[in-house]
Amino acid sequence: VPAPIDSVEDRLIAKFFAPLARDPGAFGLIDDAAILAPPPGHDVVLKTDAIVGSVHFFPDDPAGKIGRKALRVNLSDLAAKGAKPAGFLMTLALPAGTVDAWLADFAAGLGADVRQYDCPLLGGDTVRSVGTVMVSIAAYGLVPHGTMVRRNGARPGDVVCVTGTIGDAALGLGLRLEPGRAAGLAEHARDHLLSRYLLPQPRTALAEPLRSHASAAMDVSDGLAGDLAKLCRASGVSARIDADDVPLSDAARAAIAARAGSLETALTGGDDYEIVCTIGPDDVAAFRSAAARAGVEVTVIGRIVAGDDRPRFVDGGGQALSFARPSFSHF
Amino acid sequence: VPAPIDSVEDRLIAKFFAPLARDPGAFGLIDDAAILAPPPGHDVVLKTDAIVGSVHFFPDDPAGKIGRKALRVNLSDLAAKGAKPAGFLMTLALPAGTVDAWLADFAAGLGADVRQYDCPLLGGDTVRSVGTVMVSIAAYGLVPHGTMVRRNGARPGDVVCVTGTIGDAALGLGLRLEPGRAAGLAEHARDHLLSRYLLPQPRTALAEPLRSHASAAMDVSDGLAGDLAKLCRASGVSARIDADDVPLSDAARAAIAARAGSLETALTGGDDYEIVCTIGPDDVAAFRSAAARAGVEVTVIGRIVAGDDRPRFVDGGGQALSFARPSFSHF
Repeated sequence: VPAPIDSVEDRLIAKFFAPLARDPGAFGLIDDAAILAPPPGHDVVLKTDAIVGSVHFFPDDPAGKIGRKALRVNLSDLAAKGAKPAGFLMTLALPAGTVDAWLADFAAGLGADVRQYDCPLLGGDTVRSVGTVMVSIAAYGLVPHGTMVRRNGARPGDVVCVTGTIGDAALGLGLRLEPGRAAGLAEHARDHLLSRYLLPQPRTALAEPLRSHASAAMDVSDGLAGDLAKLCRASGVSARIDADDVPLSDAARAAIAARAGSLETALTGGDDYEIVCTIGPDDVAAFRSAAARAGVEVTVIGRIVAGDDRPRFVDGGGQALSFARPSFSHF
Repeated sequence: VPAPIDSVEDRLIAKFFAPLARDPGAFGLIDDAAILAPPPGHDVVLKTDAIVGSVHFFPDDPAGKIGRKALRVNLSDLAAKGAKPAGFLMTLALPAGTVDAWLADFAAGLGADVRQYDCPLLGGDTVRSVGTVMVSIAAYGLVPHGTMVRRNGARPGDVVCVTGTIGDAALGLGLRLEPGRAAGLAEHARDHLLSRYLLPQPRTALAEPLRSHASAAMDVSDGLAGDLAKLCRASGVSARIDADDVPLSDAARAAIAARAGSLETALTGGDDYEIVCTIGPDDVAAFRSAAARAGVEVTVIGRIVAGDDRPRFVDGGGQALSFARPSFSHF
């Protein structure tokens, strides 16, 4: 008989996480480190994002959804940079008394995404948390050398596009914080907004079209207004956005109609995990058809303009919207 | 005037962390992701280790030492795997109210190590902690393709070596937890043990000699007895260690002489951040001279033997030591 497995951590790894680590470079999680061997002529794109209980999710969220969200917020960044997922490392900080049932659910959710996105667990560390659960993931993607899509390439005249719909998750978070806000909403609208907060949908399929056509891109995680401002600042430009063109789900429209201030929540709240990108004017048609072939809805919402003012969001009457808090911050 | 920097996180990045990110692949920390472009024919070695306040360090430890320890525990793994440091991502979870003076000290310590080990910060995430400070680092190293030193290559007849001295940090932790234990120790001995706990010394210079000569290696972070058991289990072998040959500092000898049970603390406690490795019998002389040229002290402590028993630590009289708790666990 082999010597027994010693520690609680070894047991957790063997029971819950080794099955997510089938890549040969992970060595079955029995070594101290993993190997990533990029194909010749490729760069490794590196990204880390952490989610913390009571900050980025509710401690009573289903554990499987927490695991998936932790990976997906990173996959969203890789997609925006044009990268194909290649694997990830995970630090999991667990409060004393975390039970196996929670871990089994967490690993099952994460494992489903490992398969869905073909993104293996390559290694990790499990530590005691003195507070809530925290999951920090460092994700790796691959791009042909020199083709990572940057934030800083937007030029005046470029068209500004976003994927999917904006604001659902922030409005869903509002419903979690104040369930009374759901009063006027149909059940399917409420469920849509709640599920968009709980489980991001990274636009992985858009990576290649972005690499081929975008002058700049980033994922929208801290609110469209604030994130677009960051892209513009990095590029040394400004933007004019037609607020009426920002794509909203029917559920978001209902929530906005029901409660004053909700449009601002939609445009400045966090957790969209959509992509905002800029496309040279001659490339828009090609980008739109590539996105359509990839199955990702994209909407033109405005244009990059010269200058260094914050991007202006203008309504149908030509009035600029003003935001009390243009970007989400956890601090 | 450019648009103002929005969030507290952006301010922290610009003020404290961008100066540690001078590698061109880090894009000055103003993009969403970083790039690592490995030289042709190289593998990227991936490792993540986290340290948590009140678990892996004391919340009142100097912030600069916390930053250095967080990086060094990862560099120790890279060294054991034969890898040259190439950069790292960091997730920093900070309790509400963390002051700039703490962050300045943290970044200054970390920055000193970025320079010392030529290992740039490539990106990160700063989040609110609901508990204590937590630092999770994902570090990247480079090895020529296929040459990462594994845990699973030890063969019967191989010699077992360790670097530096064993047990200092665990004995130092004992002094932190029970200051009364320092009663019989000279001040310089106490300081030696405390500093070995506070600040690991990763054996980075040994990476190349390990790649050239070691059949297996890992860093000793959870106690020599337990970590050697893991290496043996991965290799399908056992070991016979001469306990009297395990290298001890004068300070550790004094602490062991002063208090019953301290030899077990030294051999099974954590935080050594030394390297245990196995060397084929014909390669020992070459390894020893390569290590000497690299300036790293190595000591032969025993031999790999066939079998799957736990490694035996045998004293000068031929008696096997028995350990109440063979390996350190934070759970």
